[in-house]
Amino acid sequence: MAVEEKEVGFLGLGIMGKAMATNLLRNGFKVTVWNRTLSKCDELVENGASIGETPAAVVKKCKCTIAMLSDPSAALSVVFDKDGVLEQICSGKGYIDMSTVDADTSSKINEAITSRGGHFIEAPVSGSKKPAEDGQLVILAAGEKALYEEAIPAFNVLGKRSFYLGQVGNGAKMKLVVNMIMGSMMNALSEGLVLASTSGLDPWNLLDVLDLGAIANPMFKMKGPTMIQNSYSPAFPLKHQQKDMRLALALGDENAVSMPVAAAANEAFKKARSMGLGDLDFSAVFETVKVLQHQS
Amino acid sequence: MAVEEKEVGFLGLGIMGKAMATNLLRNGFKVTVWNRTLSKCDELVENGASIGETPAAVVKKCKCTIAMLSDPSAALSVVFDKDGVLEQICSGKGYIDMSTVDADTSSKINEAITSRGGHFIEAPVSGSKKPAEDGQLVILAAGEKALYEEAIPAFNVLGKRSFYLGQVGNGAKMKLVVNMIMGSMMNALSEGLVLASTSGLDPWNLLDVLDLGAIANPMFKMKGPTMIQNSYSPAFPLKHQQKDMRLALALGDENAVSMPVAAAANEAFKKARSMGLGDLDFSAVFETVKVLQHQS
Amino acid sequence: MAVEEKEVGFLGLGIMGKAMATNLLRNGFKVTVWNRTLSKCDELVENGASIGETPAAVVKKCKCTIAMLSDPSAALSVVFDKDGVLEQICSGKGYIDMSTVDADTSSKINEAITSRGGHFIEAPVSGSKKPAEDGQLVILAAGEKALYEEAIPAFNVLGKRSFYLGQVGNGAKMKLVVNMIMGSMMNALSEGLVLASTSGLDPWNLLDVLDLGAIANPMFKMKGPTMIQNSYSPAFPLKHQQKDMRLALALGDENAVSMPVAAAANEAFKKARSMGLGDLDFSAVFETVKVLQHQS
Amino acid sequence: MAVEEKEVGFLGLGIMGKAMATNLLRNGFKVTVWNRTLSKCDELVENGASIGETPAAVVKKCKCTIAMLSDPSAALSVVFDKDGVLEQICSGKGYIDMSTVDADTSSKINEAITSRGGHFIEAPVSGSKKPAEDGQLVILAAGEKALYEEAIPAFNVLGKRSFYLGQVGNGAKMKLVVNMIMGSMMNALSEGLVLASTSGLDPWNLLDVLDLGAIANPMFKMKGPTMIQNSYSPAFPLKHQQKDMRLALALGDENAVSMPVAAAANEAFKKARSMGLGDLDFSAVFETVKVLQHQS
Repeated sequence: MAVEEKEVGFLGLGIMGKAMATNLLRNGFKVTVWNRTLSKCDELVENGASIGETPAAVVKKCKCTIAMLSDPSAALSVVFDKDGVLEQICSGKGYIDMSTVDADTSSKINEAITSRGGHFIEAPVSGSKKPAEDGQLVILAAGEKALYEEAIPAFNVLGKRSFYLGQVGNGAKMKLVVNMIMGSMMNALSEGLVLASTSGLDPWNLLDVLDLGAIANPMFKMKGPTMIQNSYSPAFPLKHQQKDMRLALALGDENAVSMPVAAAANEAFKKARSMGLGDLDFSAVFETVKVLQHQS
Repeated sequence: MAVEEKEVGFLGLGIMGKAMATNLLRNGFKVTVWNRTLSKCDELVENGASIGETPAAVVKKCKCTIAMLSDPSAALSVVFDKDGVLEQICSGKGYIDMSTVDADTSSKINEAITSRGGHFIEAPVSGSKKPAEDGQLVILAAGEKALYEEAIPAFNVLGKRSFYLGQVGNGAKMKLVVNMIMGSMMNALSEGLVLASTSGLDPWNLLDVLDLGAIANPMFKMKGPTMIQNSYSPAFPLKHQQKDMRLALALGDENAVSMPVAAAANEAFKKARSMGLGDLDFSAVFETVKVLQHQS
Repeated sequence: MAVEEKEVGFLGLGIMGKAMATNLLRNGFKVTVWNRTLSKCDELVENGASIGETPAAVVKKCKCTIAMLSDPSAALSVVFDKDGVLEQICSGKGYIDMSTVDADTSSKINEAITSRGGHFIEAPVSGSKKPAEDGQLVILAAGEKALYEEAIPAFNVLGKRSFYLGQVGNGAKMKLVVNMIMGSMMNALSEGLVLASTSGLDPWNLLDVLDLGAIANPMFKMKGPTMIQNSYSPAFPLKHQQKDMRLALALGDENAVSMPVAAAANEAFKKARSMGLGDLDFSAVFETVKVLQHQS
Repeated sequence: MAVEEKEVGFLGLGIMGKAMATNLLRNGFKVTVWNRTLSKCDELVENGASIGETPAAVVKKCKCTIAMLSDPSAALSVVFDKDGVLEQICSGKGYIDMSTVDADTSSKINEAITSRGGHFIEAPVSGSKKPAEDGQLVILAAGEKALYEEAIPAFNVLGKRSFYLGQVGNGAKMKLVVNMIMGSMMNALSEGLVLASTSGLDPWNLLDVLDLGAIANPMFKMKGPTMIQNSYSPAFPLKHQQKDMRLALALGDENAVSMPVAAAANEAFKKARSMGLGDLDFSAVFETVKVLQHQS
């Protein structure tokens, strides 16, 4: 995928994939798309994309193929099933999985691709629909360095920044670390909001003060107001946040890293699940902190 | 201190007080200053300030006096000692204590001032030397509303934003809540940095990724690099951070607010104290998370 | 109170005090009793006790006086009020406060007694009504060693074991340490019972298995069955348990002792208070662990 | 294995297995033994045991076979390897695995045995060498109820009590729950001992006071003195305790059980591992609580 070629396959046209493939087209890439429900390809075709009938067909046609699938099982299916990526991957062809999957899934795909002589990087992203549309994703790539370098022109279109993080699995690990910090911070905000309210302070004032200081951050600014209004429309479901904290703690366990704050946050998210809040936004952990009665 | 008057007393010319009094002078206020070591007044006098020989003399001269003192004992001494504020405070005079003190200290001063007919607000600030010089402090005022409103012209010079938070004590409480959240976040960052390192990720990459995402904040950006370099020059001493977490947890205890993440963070700061790190920067809590050996 | 004399004053005839004074009478002590409601002395008088009209009168008559009062304010009142202990305490007279009070209260009483030449020990007990009746209390004495030694004959009647713990305040501290461990253990049991139930195990089986192993203890045996039955009749109110955990953590804070498990347990007791369970037995912390829903 | 028969196979003659098989012989059972190192069978043969050349040979000869192996891999190997249990198991034959293994291992063995028509229970024990020799084990059996009932005469010889806990896996789960509670209690004791010492109390007094009260238990009595002497000769290695806490927390995670105290204890055990204490006794978690310096 040297700059002169700018040809790429693209598997998976969900909310993220569609926005990303559209960006590639807009920036002069020739894109061959595939989606399980083929009708979702229509809009891309109107914008100049070609269609591949199967993942294998896309890989056969393109030197380099990007995938953006909804979950680990979809990521595995596209590679291993009949008419899947494995049937055509070979020496000289690259496969870039930008789906968010666990390290195990990524490893399995990596082994299968490379054992057939193919090249592989995982490249999960930070950022959702809007950054995807705006080409403002943050890309956490790991795997074969040469393929990463080949992919830079595409990554420059898709994201505001890409990182090369070393061996396969490191992209997934980096996401876990970031999400673990985020989960602890969400608990810190929740505790602060409740402490403010019960102490006679206006929680809206707290949000304003926070936003003017050294710990001001977009998440507090975005989630704080909806939390005060007990609104937890799921941008990132709580049960997924808790799963990531569990996996981050397990990663720490392998190397004897004691993380008492993350552990306490994890238990709070579990408590939220036990209250039936697992499908709401992860900010619903706020509910676990609220004071129910005051009598003693 | 209506706009037409713009006359104010100022007690305490430490790093913060000097910057603040200078700002008032620059913005057209007539300022009468006092400092325990009177020689520290010289520079202010060159810039147009008058000198008061004692706190009482300043209060006698000025309708409204601001204090910015180093700690609760200094704040109490300036009010209650011989030649102190109390000797001249009376109906029609206002006293604004912008020092960072605990709620008890603030209450004592409030009672003494108001029992003599004086007017009082506490107005602790968020921000240190640089924001003080730039008039970019955040001011957390509480106490008599009328005095707060009178003080707005001065606050507009000293800070980028001022809040009126209700009854005396609420300024101190708001600082505790903010510092509690900050302490939990510092632990979250520490745990993330160690988890990254032990998992084969570059902690500098983690800082870059964090800075591009939803939880990007000035503290991570400022402290992260020095932590990776094990440098803990004390901007905010760890023992003070731990004291604030203890007080915040105690505030929660009064109203039965369970805050497991702040409690875990508090214990980590205590651990750091037990390692002899209390006088270093609060980011030295990082040392408590580090893995010492790996053998089992 | 050498063996030959065996004469003692006794202030406070509540449930505990009455049982203790009765035991002293039964074992050959001459006892002069006082109680705020004097009618409560009748039964003791039938058993051979004399009556003192006031605490001062008791102290005047007896070389050594024991007090067993309901709380710190009663303990202070008996000493400092009109007709109180202080009016007659003097060189050669001893005062033994066996009430459960905080270290501050104990120190105040100690200072007042000793500044008048009197002798003082605090001697809080472990054990409630039944052990008091059976002379099976555990006595945690601290203060003047000579008075402790003089009191041993009485302590041998009242308790199965007495400890001399050093300076005044150490009795209260020892109780805090024990109660802190107890509070963490109660949480451990609560978590285990819920984990068993949700994992398809019978919690009654868990209690049986626990009782046969290395961690078998009377508290698990006594509280386990009532917890499974959601019965929390208050033997030791949860709010008092939480207060003791708070004080124990504060004691640790003074010396930078990080106690993450006690801190987590303390937050769980706070959560229970926030659910309105503060007046129930401390085993009601079990309610905070229960799983409410399972859907995600 | 009805009472009249009292014939049983026994696989594995380590410390535990040898004691158990010896007990069966002493109590009138005809026992056919096998051990990977056959020479270890000699002593049993002197006491009247027969030898089986392979696990398969033992199963062929006996209606019911007990296994007591060192770890999951040994437990799997004896069943699945050449000349293993599976080669002879069949309808009418029972297999009782008393090794301590995880639920997965137990399930695999169960499926293999029952798919060949055999009968299976897992029956891990609580108790080590001495209780095994004295027939004082606690047996946590789960699996086919009929086989459990058949095994009762043997269990009565081996243990002071046996429990039937339902489906396969429940024996392992019960051990996890018990060990989780034990791990939290060990942390509670560690924190209490350090708090006592730093507060001017004698930790030996604390142990005495604990042993006289409602939370007295054999573990405190046994481990407390060695902890005070910083002696951690490994009876139960810390890394295994931490693994059990991890697995117990994972079990809770499946059902959204929030267990903040166990989670805090788990992080303390991880901290101990990070200090290189994983191979010492689990009471070495005490080292994580100790205060290193006091200056601030």
